[in-house]
Amino acid sequence: MYSFKNDYSEGAHPRILNALLATNLIQAEGYGEDCYTLQAVELLKQKLNRNDADIHLLSGGTQTNLTAIAAFLRPHEAVISANTGHILVHETGAIEATGHKVIPVESRDGKIKVDQIKAVVAGHTDEHMVKPKMVYISNPTEIGSIYSKRELQAISSFCKENKLILYVDGARLGSALCAEGNDLELADLPLLVDAFYIGGTKGGALLGEALVICSDWLKAEFRFHMKQKGALLAKGRILGIQFLELFRDNLYFDLAKHANEMAALLRREIALAGYRFLTDSPSNQIFPVLPDRLIAKLQEKYAFYVWEKVDDGHSAIRLVTSWATEKTAVVEFLNDLKKA
Amino acid sequence: MYSFKNDYSEGAHPRILNALLATNLIQAEGYGEDCYTLQAVELLKQKLNRNDADIHLLSGGTQTNLTAIAAFLRPHEAVISANTGHILVHETGAIEATGHKVIPVESRDGKIKVDQIKAVVAGHTDEHMVKPKMVYISNPTEIGSIYSKRELQAISSFCKENKLILYVDGARLGSALCAEGNDLELADLPLLVDAFYIGGTKGGALLGEALVICSDWLKAEFRFHMKQKGALLAKGRILGIQFLELFRDNLYFDLAKHANEMAALLRREIALAGYRFLTDSPSNQIFPVLPDRLIAKLQEKYAFYVWEKVDDGHSAIRLVTSWATEKTAVVEFLNDLKKA
Amino acid sequence: MYSFKNDYSEGAHPRILNALLATNLIQAEGYGEDCYTLQAVELLKQKLNRNDADIHLLSGGTQTNLTAIAAFLRPHEAVISANTGHILVHETGAIEATGHKVIPVESRDGKIKVDQIKAVVAGHTDEHMVKPKMVYISNPTEIGSIYSKRELQAISSFCKENKLILYVDGARLGSALCAEGNDLELADLPLLVDAFYIGGTKGGALLGEALVICSDWLKAEFRFHMKQKGALLAKGRILGIQFLELFRDNLYFDLAKHANEMAALLRREIALAGYRFLTDSPSNQIFPVLPDRLIAKLQEKYAFYVWEKVDDGHSAIRLVTSWATEKTAVVEFLNDLKKA
Amino acid sequence: MYSFKNDYSEGAHPRILNALLATNLIQAEGYGEDCYTLQAVELLKQKLNRNDADIHLLSGGTQTNLTAIAAFLRPHEAVISANTGHILVHETGAIEATGHKVIPVESRDGKIKVDQIKAVVAGHTDEHMVKPKMVYISNPTEIGSIYSKRELQAISSFCKENKLILYVDGARLGSALCAEGNDLELADLPLLVDAFYIGGTKGGALLGEALVICSDWLKAEFRFHMKQKGALLAKGRILGIQFLELFRDNLYFDLAKHANEMAALLRREIALAGYRFLTDSPSNQIFPVLPDRLIAKLQEKYAFYVWEKVDDGHSAIRLVTSWATEKTAVVEFLNDLKKA
Repeated sequence: MYSFKNDYSEGAHPRILNALLATNLIQAEGYGEDCYTLQAVELLKQKLNRNDADIHLLSGGTQTNLTAIAAFLRPHEAVISANTGHILVHETGAIEATGHKVIPVESRDGKIKVDQIKAVVAGHTDEHMVKPKMVYISNPTEIGSIYSKRELQAISSFCKENKLILYVDGARLGSALCAEGNDLELADLPLLVDAFYIGGTKGGALLGEALVICSDWLKAEFRFHMKQKGALLAKGRILGIQFLELFRDNLYFDLAKHANEMAALLRREIALAGYRFLTDSPSNQIFPVLPDRLIAKLQEKYAFYVWEKVDDGHSAIRLVTSWATEKTAVVEFLNDLKKA
Repeated sequence: MYSFKNDYSEGAHPRILNALLATNLIQAEGYGEDCYTLQAVELLKQKLNRNDADIHLLSGGTQTNLTAIAAFLRPHEAVISANTGHILVHETGAIEATGHKVIPVESRDGKIKVDQIKAVVAGHTDEHMVKPKMVYISNPTEIGSIYSKRELQAISSFCKENKLILYVDGARLGSALCAEGNDLELADLPLLVDAFYIGGTKGGALLGEALVICSDWLKAEFRFHMKQKGALLAKGRILGIQFLELFRDNLYFDLAKHANEMAALLRREIALAGYRFLTDSPSNQIFPVLPDRLIAKLQEKYAFYVWEKVDDGHSAIRLVTSWATEKTAVVEFLNDLKKA
Repeated sequence: MYSFKNDYSEGAHPRILNALLATNLIQAEGYGEDCYTLQAVELLKQKLNRNDADIHLLSGGTQTNLTAIAAFLRPHEAVISANTGHILVHETGAIEATGHKVIPVESRDGKIKVDQIKAVVAGHTDEHMVKPKMVYISNPTEIGSIYSKRELQAISSFCKENKLILYVDGARLGSALCAEGNDLELADLPLLVDAFYIGGTKGGALLGEALVICSDWLKAEFRFHMKQKGALLAKGRILGIQFLELFRDNLYFDLAKHANEMAALLRREIALAGYRFLTDSPSNQIFPVLPDRLIAKLQEKYAFYVWEKVDDGHSAIRLVTSWATEKTAVVEFLNDLKKA
Repeated sequence: MYSFKNDYSEGAHPRILNALLATNLIQAEGYGEDCYTLQAVELLKQKLNRNDADIHLLSGGTQTNLTAIAAFLRPHEAVISANTGHILVHETGAIEATGHKVIPVESRDGKIKVDQIKAVVAGHTDEHMVKPKMVYISNPTEIGSIYSKRELQAISSFCKENKLILYVDGARLGSALCAEGNDLELADLPLLVDAFYIGGTKGGALLGEALVICSDWLKAEFRFHMKQKGALLAKGRILGIQFLELFRDNLYFDLAKHANEMAALLRREIALAGYRFLTDSPSNQIFPVLPDRLIAKLQEKYAFYVWEKVDDGHSAIRLVTSWATEKTAVVEFLNDLKKA
């Protein structure tokens, strides 16, 4: 049984484990004040071309989202999210548990448009309603689509004009930035958004996300929030070592490219086999619509999620590739699909 | 510079890293539903002699404390802690951030006595005050002391009679259970307490704590709470693999014994050198009282915390040993201390 | 300028002020343990035919909703509400501020249907999502519609089968129960719902809502929650005295009938004048669709909310009547409307 | 049975009820935007000599404390309180329920000293601990003592230098400002503190407290917080009307003086009868230490709290007077005490 269920089925890229091994018995400070974390932070600042950014390493995506959002907002402020947004549906109310409403906007492609943000802001007129204060987007989105530079610029401008915080969930940021058609670079992000995170867990690390706080007014005393929310690992070194390895050269992006290529191969061949897709995705998640009988057949050898029923007899499935996805497995899957 | 600052200065025990390496590319389910975590849980149940316990692996101590306490208490209920308790002073209000008051009781040795719990309960008489509902203790305590079986039984009985939840923070549980004078066994805990955690981070793992929920009424839907608080790692496997390795044989306790032996050696020799201790500790943290000039001298070669000023000219320092503490470093430290 | 903006533009019904005056200097216990509150509670139990209900008097609607919902739910549990629901849009995230997500369901008439609840429950499948645990409805709804006995029974049955708490916001309950076409009685509610409140503020009192907890498992230690949320008035007597007066005879319902009659008169005559309504409402709020020029004209003499733009040239306005609405003002308004 | 249990045993001063009656049927805006509230706010600004203050009327003390503190603090910030502080012991964890720790400091007389604040600040050194950010004091304190101008100035200076918010709980502020030995004036408060509230409930009103926010940086969007916490009454007018009446002339202080005089009479005569007091109180609460047998005798005719056991045979009782306390009742109580 080979799994295309997600991009966290394996451990870490071998270079990362080797880095952990190589540094294992060297003593270091605790709680993210170790030399590895400090180096990783410096390295990321260089890659981002932003010496003034504040960068913190946290253990996971939900942890990062809830810690950042709770730190950035005052009690009556709310965050706007696409109705497919991870914080809206798949984090067990983690944001609300910190006291903040998440305001959904309808989205077919996983992305939010400026007009939708404008409508939410316009619809919240007084103190009987929450105050929309943050826009949360994911890039790539939860259904694999990506934001173009122009789209992100438009949202960014609107947010700046309206004093809204723009926050990007980059759980799979590598995949977005390496996707076909993408015109955003890593160093564009600090120019456009107030805060974002670079996902490690789904990008080759054992665990870890790098939160980048770009706007000065959001930086103060962030480590207090991390500690309070349980996000400060005693052995913070293990996050530092991993990010150092991922960004020492181009590993992070090489791994994302591999994942994207495996997804592209699946996409291309499945399309050639005559199937359509639920949604257009250039990143490492694709959603082919297949006959239910074919799905049942494939499930005998492969693990993946059946995403939604499309019509009587057809469903969309989700195939996720990662840095670890083997080309032979992809080819075999495609053969099995074509044969069936 | 050799560090006795804490027990998380190094990475993980080499066997643990090897286990991560050996399993690295095997695909597994996400979010703690992988085979390694399931096996680790089964193994721990055997060691605890409790098949009915619910066991969850979380990333760190504060995370475990806040997730468990928030899950177990209703909004108006509070937790009693020694004034040295980790949740009271060193978790940045993590418990209060989930809405619950922590009620301090004075303690000179880090331990809580039944009479103190009784007094708190008696002093909270009506709905104008919070309702004390949980007793939080650490074993060993934050200043290195340990609970005897009789002491824990006494607290346990009182809690049962008064419907109080008894929760043990076991960040350094291995050290307590291997300490000289200890008469508690791991399998005693589920008989005496409602929930506790077995600390991995300070016991040889990269990260990870095993929360054991013993009482049925506290078990329901705990994974929802983990997800909501950001405590459910996507690659939960890395926690499972580590606990599997720690408890596959006696590794967890062997490592704790080593840490204790190194502390005992320090304690013995420092006492022989004529110094006293701030507090009596049989576990892996000791608190010798030294002349300030000697402390300054030692600080040239060693890192440790100056705990508190004792009098004009003397302070207590904290020395912490771990599974990774080298005997040669201890011996050298002692030589330097005697020479100075 | 006469106001049809809301049903809390005036003070209290004169009998209520007289009751406050008559008892003013009699000493009584504080915090709702006074004889008036106790009597009011007993009286309400009789009217509800439920000696076993727990009844608490709180100061306002948002206060009641947030205190009850926070007391009833565990941290990961969420409440389902119509997208017009008061807790969803008009309480500044009060429910989220206590940590709980409010899940919206689309509604054109302000009411929730069983199928919608069923779909929400079915869509929340695991611990990565909140657990829907409560259904919140308002009767009458925020746009004036009311639930029939059959509709409420259907929701009640589904909730019982699925262990969902059914909670009714009765800010204007009197108006619902006295509305034309209503077939629910006050004593039906405890048989069908787990908790509800009888609105006093909009029903003739200065302030005050009576929360009725019908289901045993929700009753425990509720006064702790009230105190914690600031809902326990020191002079709780003023709530007791008012509810005693409202329910001593039929005053509460007489006042609601008057409000409904004034709304019915407006509805009838506006319809006869050839205008339609945005939504069908048999209670004390109506939403006629009028030409914008007529609206502007009416605004010179009358205060009311312009609810929403309907088309180029027309908008819906909201007219609210109350126990205090003067028939002469209604007649004058209708004359002005017809003349214009 | 005459009650000296508290200062909220009766309703409101008759002038207040008359004011409610006189305005009862005049239509007004809801939610504190009515003309009465606006006038009351203007009037209070004049009395405070501070046109730039923001003033909000809320329903009760706990409500005011929790709304203000939650609005003013960021998630990791904590509030310092005397161990007798109302928020620490008698509000059922209301502050913690909004996520903030309350740090206790020992106090024998109910007051906090600068050195104690300094020690707390010094003891909170890094992000593993909460950040002390607010000092909460009550004037008079919960055991009747009052702050002198010099004491308050000292605290104020320290807070300003250390960027701590100084907040005064003025539930019985009238009594403090009219107490013998007091040298503070109402208009001094905005010069010395960041925010405080003027208690209405215990000062002659049915309910209501006036929160005064003096420091600009704490003012923004406070009404959102009020609505979110259930503190915005629909008929906010009833708070406005009452404060207007209390401060239209000198009524608020006249009532406080009466309460103080009744307490002074009790104090003087009980002292003359040879009894001592648990604590020195110049305000409307006194704590005589009486033989238990005398207490039992008095309890036959009078209601009051037995505060604490002092020794075998003696206890301190609490006697509270108010605007409504009858001199004849005081005289009779004293006669009964002397006779017994």
